[in-house]
Amino acid sequence: MELLKKRITENGRALSESVLKVDSFLNHQIDPALINEISSEFCERFSDCSFNKILTIESSGIAPAVMTGLRMGIPVVFAKKAKPSTMTEEFFTAPVHSFTKQKDYDVAIAAKFITKGDRILIIDDFLAHGSASRALIAIAEQGGAKVGGIGIVIEKGFQNGGKLLRELGYRIESLAIIDEMSRDSIVFRD
Amino acid sequence: MELLKKRITENGRALSESVLKVDSFLNHQIDPALINEISSEFCERFSDCSFNKILTIESSGIAPAVMTGLRMGIPVVFAKKAKPSTMTEEFFTAPVHSFTKQKDYDVAIAAKFITKGDRILIIDDFLAHGSASRALIAIAEQGGAKVGGIGIVIEKGFQNGGKLLRELGYRIESLAIIDEMSRDSIVFRD
Repeated sequence: MELLKKRITENGRALSESVLKVDSFLNHQIDPALINEISSEFCERFSDCSFNKILTIESSGIAPAVMTGLRMGIPVVFAKKAKPSTMTEEFFTAPVHSFTKQKDYDVAIAAKFITKGDRILIIDDFLAHGSASRALIAIAEQGGAKVGGIGIVIEKGFQNGGKLLRELGYRIESLAIIDEMSRDSIVFRD
Repeated sequence: MELLKKRITENGRALSESVLKVDSFLNHQIDPALINEISSEFCERFSDCSFNKILTIESSGIAPAVMTGLRMGIPVVFAKKAKPSTMTEEFFTAPVHSFTKQKDYDVAIAAKFITKGDRILIIDDFLAHGSASRALIAIAEQGGAKVGGIGIVIEKGFQNGGKLLRELGYRIESLAIIDEMSRDSIVFRD
């Protein structure tokens, strides 16, 4: 997606060879018009698929997930990083390892929001090692749902999450794949 | 907003006289079509105001904030509940007390995203004691910005946050104000 790559080039900043800062339009300040274009692109790329629910993880996945859900006319469920005090009923959990923060945490979704037979689209802002996506897949499977696609805003192609998930047969649509980056340059996959 | 009140009545659940569960459409599963209507209502109610930025707090404020930002054509900044490892520069923080979770935490916004003279609209899913809104006001003020309005999806009118903020002169537009609730009934303010 050219508009997104342009934005990453202009406003993103590689803090190292693995950490990309896109806080001016994606995960701290959000540009709603860009997210709207992103949701349009997800709809186009998955136009041959039929989903009835979107899963994402709080917080940065929520904006693209909700705009995509609006276009597709389906609900969004976001996994929570801590089991909330008002979540009194049964829930599914799966562990996530954050390489950026160097810690493990569980994400949780109330069991009632995953229905056997659900055709799930996962949406997230980043795909790096794939830990978050694998957690959402695990949660979907606990509820008997099937993940039919994974929509990613920015994939770090130099880390192995995308490769691994594609080898497992998952359809991934990443709107921008970065093959290499340094403080001076960001190289996108064609 | 009648559509919202209807939804709260039909799908919300008062777990006690103070805890309202709206996880099927607002803060765990999200109904994007409802959020879209909510953003339309915020635009209409604040049509006499001019804002250049929306502030909210992760996570449940993000969906209504981003859809409102799209309609208003302005960026959204969400305060983070923990200072992220990639937030290396200066930031503003303010404390929030969560009565539901019975704990205090800081929220943070990178200083570069608050500009002197910004005309801020705060959007959040709930207003109860007003702690989250007051934190966002404090952050805005640290950056020399002015809060011109506060848009709330559900106000717990039986708690004092709304009263307090209105007495301080803030313009609050709450789409549904609950005056009283119990396990059997939810009473809205006219």
